Amino acid sequence: MKNNPSVAVIGGGSWASAIVKMLTNNLDRVNWWMRNEKSVDHLKKYHHNPKYLQSVEYNMDKIHVSTDLKEIIDSSEVLVMATPSAFIANMFDDYPRDGMDKKIIISAIKGIVPEFNAIPARYFHKTFRIPYEQIGMISGPCHAEEVALERLSYITVACPDQDIAANFAKMLDCRYIKTSISDDLFGTELSAVLKNVYAIASGIYSGLGYGDNFQAVLVSNGIQEAERFIDAVNPIHRDVLTSAYLGDLLVTAYSKFSRNRTFGFMIGKGYSVKTAQLEMDMIAEGYYAVKSIMAINEKFDVDLPICQAVYHVIYEKISPVIEMNILADKLS
Amino acid sequence: MKNNPSVAVIGGGSWASAIVKMLTNNLDRVNWWMRNEKSVDHLKKYHHNPKYLQSVEYNMDKIHVSTDLKEIIDSSEVLVMATPSAFIANMFDDYPRDGMDKKIIISAIKGIVPEFNAIPARYFHKTFRIPYEQIGMISGPCHAEEVALERLSYITVACPDQDIAANFAKMLDCRYIKTSISDDLFGTELSAVLKNVYAIASGIYSGLGYGDNFQAVLVSNGIQEAERFIDAVNPIHRDVLTSAYLGDLLVTAYSKFSRNRTFGFMIGKGYSVKTAQLEMDMIAEGYYAVKSIMAINEKFDVDLPICQAVYHVIYEKISPVIEMNILADKLS
Repeated sequence: MKNNPSVAVIGGGSWASAIVKMLTNNLDRVNWWMRNEKSVDHLKKYHHNPKYLQSVEYNMDKIHVSTDLKEIIDSSEVLVMATPSAFIANMFDDYPRDGMDKKIIISAIKGIVPEFNAIPARYFHKTFRIPYEQIGMISGPCHAEEVALERLSYITVACPDQDIAANFAKMLDCRYIKTSISDDLFGTELSAVLKNVYAIASGIYSGLGYGDNFQAVLVSNGIQEAERFIDAVNPIHRDVLTSAYLGDLLVTAYSKFSRNRTFGFMIGKGYSVKTAQLEMDMIAEGYYAVKSIMAINEKFDVDLPICQAVYHVIYEKISPVIEMNILADKLS
Repeated sequence: MKNNPSVAVIGGGSWASAIVKMLTNNLDRVNWWMRNEKSVDHLKKYHHNPKYLQSVEYNMDKIHVSTDLKEIIDSSEVLVMATPSAFIANMFDDYPRDGMDKKIIISAIKGIVPEFNAIPARYFHKTFRIPYEQIGMISGPCHAEEVALERLSYITVACPDQDIAANFAKMLDCRYIKTSISDDLFGTELSAVLKNVYAIASGIYSGLGYGDNFQAVLVSNGIQEAERFIDAVNPIHRDVLTSAYLGDLLVTAYSKFSRNRTFGFMIGKGYSVKTAQLEMDMIAEGYYAVKSIMAINEKFDVDLPICQAVYHVIYEKISPVIEMNILADKLS
């Protein structure tokens, strides 16, 4: 990564909004793509994103915001991808195939690209022939809402190229953000995906009336299941007790801000999957993730009882009361 | 352990009350010692403990309750110790030294005997020459209040003698309690002790206004610190991701029922240690634990930044704002 590269954030949701806020602490200019024209106008006029993290006031002298994806990408060397994973394939379907191979991609997506059953890194690598050395990701226990409040948070930047990881981490580092780096791109991405599934499970159990004692058992079994899976998919040395893995799971499974937990809670309370989705105006990444994880696992055949139970409830309409009871018997 | 041994629960608090409830599901008779004469009378007359878990109705046909410690111990082969660790030495100071060497001791104490800087197992071993093979402990993420509500909970019984562990586990097993066994008596005890210190830390940070993102980082660092310490003190193979270690930490650090977290929260909010203790009518085990852990660690010299910070705040009256800020810089 050259010094002071031009950086773009792709996405207009809460996590994208938090990342732009962090970057503007350290950079003179941030390019920002969002789909919604009205949001762009509002941002330019009032310096606030009207739909997410509304409390954050942006320094618009540093921000170039546009709805023109190609213009934003062409003018940036580092692309921080922060749209819901379910939109990625659709967004980039028509994008010129040779338009990105020199870019550095930082995925802030925390999901799986459902059409490809692939983590975002793999999708960008396969689709745009971007070398993995140019692909990184942002992870760690970091709800956007707390970044907006400037509450101390820790972020891990994972990239096979440790210089890229370190340089991008430096762009985020500030009074309320501490950063670490890692080379475990695949493990960190998959762990970030799995935690959304465990957060759904946690929400379902909570909705069914299970208590804190059980929740602790579920989360302990969840991190063991995640370790089994990522060790099988990408067998390198890692410590899942660190913030990028366990921390990320904890904040999602326990926090009231978690959309995946809320989605699960509604299902546990008896809402249908469809109704739960309609009632929420945010995407629960775990909904797509669990399907893709089960598909990926056909090759690896790891024992994933929690993912399996969530899959049964969401996609095979098995009663959560019955399914979660069966799962509870498998936990220890 | 012979078949159908006579069992006593020593203690009248909430955890003792929960254990008596569990045991009466499987045993025909449970001996129960509690200090408070009025509570004994109330229990006999109304079948409820007037001070803890008041909602639980006991089957008094199965319970022999008394304030006579010697009588209860003499008539029981298995002694479940469930008093606050700070009372243990005082309670057993005058007890005949040769009165217990044939007993099986199950510690449900989750603390350190402060006068001895020793886990309860070591205290009973040293004081009453009870072989470690006859000493076990109950662990796992299990707030007494949720046992009272019959919410599904998981308990681990650890004992060097796996038959004793299995037999005692069977006595607890019921519709709402699932059990596992382990041979890691020392690691499980020390982990149970440490989690109370981390719960205090978690409470202090919460009182200071730190959020969920930070909490997840603190807990991730806590389980790493616990692993370092127990691996140094007792270097055997264990998986700290399991319920007896991580689960136990989670339920304490995250649950609203945790007295240690509440104690920390008050300190974070600016109460003095003395005022916080006066305002609470339960003992925060972590208060004593952190002092003993620091003393034990003089021999092992493990890096324990979280314990150290809590020790500084509680015993050296260093401002929590300053101390916890220094600690935050050490975490990742």
